[in-house]
Amino acid sequence: MAESWSSSVDAHLDWTPGSGRAGLAAAVRAAIRDGRWQPGAVVPSTRALAHDLDVARGTVTRVYADLAAEGYLRTAQGAPTRVATAGASPLPAPVPATEPAYRWTFRPGRPDPSLFPRDLWLAATRRVLSHAPNQVFDYGEVRGSNVLRATLSAYLGRARGVLADPARIIVCSGFNHAIGVLGRALREVGITETAFEDPSIGRFRTVASAAGQRVVGVPVDASGLVVSELDSPAVVVTPAHQFPLGVTMAPARRTALAGSGAVVIEDDYDGEFRYDRQQVGALQALAPERVIYAGTASKSLAPSLRLAWLVLPRSLVDPVLAALTAVGAQPPLLPQLVLADLISSGAYDRHVRRCRLEYRDRRDRLVAALPSHLTPEGISAGLHLVLRLPSSVEAGLPAAARRHSIALERLSPMWMRAVEEPGGIVVGYGAAAKNAFTGALRAFLSMLGELT
Amino acid sequence: MAESWSSSVDAHLDWTPGSGRAGLAAAVRAAIRDGRWQPGAVVPSTRALAHDLDVARGTVTRVYADLAAEGYLRTAQGAPTRVATAGASPLPAPVPATEPAYRWTFRPGRPDPSLFPRDLWLAATRRVLSHAPNQVFDYGEVRGSNVLRATLSAYLGRARGVLADPARIIVCSGFNHAIGVLGRALREVGITETAFEDPSIGRFRTVASAAGQRVVGVPVDASGLVVSELDSPAVVVTPAHQFPLGVTMAPARRTALAGSGAVVIEDDYDGEFRYDRQQVGALQALAPERVIYAGTASKSLAPSLRLAWLVLPRSLVDPVLAALTAVGAQPPLLPQLVLADLISSGAYDRHVRRCRLEYRDRRDRLVAALPSHLTPEGISAGLHLVLRLPSSVEAGLPAAARRHSIALERLSPMWMRAVEEPGGIVVGYGAAAKNAFTGALRAFLSMLGELT
Repeated sequence: MAESWSSSVDAHLDWTPGSGRAGLAAAVRAAIRDGRWQPGAVVPSTRALAHDLDVARGTVTRVYADLAAEGYLRTAQGAPTRVATAGASPLPAPVPATEPAYRWTFRPGRPDPSLFPRDLWLAATRRVLSHAPNQVFDYGEVRGSNVLRATLSAYLGRARGVLADPARIIVCSGFNHAIGVLGRALREVGITETAFEDPSIGRFRTVASAAGQRVVGVPVDASGLVVSELDSPAVVVTPAHQFPLGVTMAPARRTALAGSGAVVIEDDYDGEFRYDRQQVGALQALAPERVIYAGTASKSLAPSLRLAWLVLPRSLVDPVLAALTAVGAQPPLLPQLVLADLISSGAYDRHVRRCRLEYRDRRDRLVAALPSHLTPEGISAGLHLVLRLPSSVEAGLPAAARRHSIALERLSPMWMRAVEEPGGIVVGYGAAAKNAFTGALRAFLSMLGELT
Repeated sequence: MAESWSSSVDAHLDWTPGSGRAGLAAAVRAAIRDGRWQPGAVVPSTRALAHDLDVARGTVTRVYADLAAEGYLRTAQGAPTRVATAGASPLPAPVPATEPAYRWTFRPGRPDPSLFPRDLWLAATRRVLSHAPNQVFDYGEVRGSNVLRATLSAYLGRARGVLADPARIIVCSGFNHAIGVLGRALREVGITETAFEDPSIGRFRTVASAAGQRVVGVPVDASGLVVSELDSPAVVVTPAHQFPLGVTMAPARRTALAGSGAVVIEDDYDGEFRYDRQQVGALQALAPERVIYAGTASKSLAPSLRLAWLVLPRSLVDPVLAALTAVGAQPPLLPQLVLADLISSGAYDRHVRRCRLEYRDRRDRLVAALPSHLTPEGISAGLHLVLRLPSSVEAGLPAAARRHSIALERLSPMWMRAVEEPGGIVVGYGAAAKNAFTGALRAFLSMLGELT
């Protein structure tokens, strides 16, 4: 209500002329709620209020009837209409969400949002909306769009070496959601403990734990997860590019893990982005009845799409569907169809290639510019690398980052074990907008110079 | 691989010439997996295979290195390369999802998918994609888009009389998801029992129960939920148009419920569709610190959008955010912004009005055509009405519906109590496509004639 004034001294209504029945009802509700119209009080007669406000008496009558139906007013045959409720206490002012705004970002685990292919997405949306059958606007299938699952089946086989029969593919609202659903499903098949790589992302461990899994850690060395120390019936791993350390799991470890008997959740979060010549296909194909492959559009397109997919061992399809139903969340259908269109038209591959070149270029610039006493780790793939720092240096990082207005993440909070591990920075060079990377890099180097 | 043949008798590879390194790697993986290349066996030398296949020797060398990295092959200095893994058992054929296809539909709880405003959605998507800041493609806010929450705040106040401060609004992946999140959040504040209307939708009760709530039933009579029989600290109600019975909660009941002290989850699933003159605003405004308002785009736009919103008592905002984080699912950002654009441009209101006219027309035609001995109930709003039938007649419904190829739902499975309740049909007249409604109505009437 742009124009609003008290139109009736007696009625104390903040009411806008011309706002009709709905506007008048809103004004009366407000008056009741904030106590201007007291509980139990007789309300102005319809005739008086209509005259005061210069509206039709029928309008007032209908508003009173509406508000009586809503429980604000009490009407009775032959008795005056009264305010029925004590009203609610006035609402407090909203608490604004406050987050420190950084000028530059090197936060790991996210792609450059300025690379999102807006035109491609719009064009694919247009194609989907012009061709999709009406069923697309009914309830979707719990397991995800049939079209997307068939498309992913071919794509994952070709791009990642995954054995991905569409009947085993489930679409989720991001890997976060997938981990929660899997935690529930594993519990249903009797698995109540899930190991995570140490270090790894705490958020996923929290979700697994909320889904009823006991969470334990397994160390990671230069060859990846130390499989000989795995003693849990399920484990979450990042074999292509360990998060955060960036190591690639060695062949013998892959074989050992595939044959370990554990249910393996293979988080292939940045499998599309590999910069050296050595391709590393998915672990899943080694043991498709033990390995759950998890992929996502969060790095290749945008995290805010909240789209991930699982390729499941046959025995887990039904438990996962049951868990999905129990959690009650599923991703919307339209974006799934848009993604399927992008993949099958080849636009997705071209987009990924463009991004890969951009991120490789950033990595090269970052690595070349680092001070010689710092050796970056995990540089062969993905959107981040690691700089190890003594704990005492890492301790000064938050303050230094604030001074230079850089959002970034420390390594040490990602460790699970109690013993002290070396600190460091997990440097997400993918996160900055393309046109801000040069400035971000300069700020980062300047901060590093101060720190080390 | 459209063209594929066995190119090398010795190697037993199904390989397509010209498919490059990726194609050769896929062929070798397949040969290992299905046992043509036996575990432990020495693989063909790179020279021999390159000659056989007429590819560069370097290609074979790189494919072997890739597959060694993936764990398929075992390489050692000075020793021949061998197959490293026992391979996976071949995958079974996918199980096709089978659901009986009905020609006509009267399933309740869903709108006509042919009314989805494809053009409006596309135009709004174009506007959003051309104006949205890059952050839209980063991770979104857990509570939902700020833009959508601000838009809903104004819309819900205007259209449904909800007191909807944006700081109290949370966007969910449909009401199903919302019920699961609320079940968890209520548990965190010490509430472990949630009452549902009896009858109501079993799916929501299942989700609440999976979220840790003990589920109990409270009867519904002609005035809605029998509040005097409510003895739980939380309750899910459909006051505007009870599902499935279609009654509107009486004013005195609303007042009593708002003052009952229970946390009330107001499921306003079809609040936009009211056909009589009596508007019924949301219960929430009577007691915004006790009532959780839940709205959805599932009936006004499409269930497959999976978009719902909660307006929360202040004390529940943090517990609900924590539960959302624990469940790990959140809706994608782009559709939220598209919906916000549709609402704030007025296109949403116009669309809802068009749909309301269409559904009212269907209701009128259906009610007019019913046999005189059947009195439809719950006809003043929504997308469904109820026809009560003796249990013995309802028992014959599934077979009759199959004969006439009509998808519909019986009333009796929606009751919670053990005592036998009258049966009936919950007739969802919104579900059929616009151009199929006449045929669907004819089939339905013909089925009814046979049944009763």
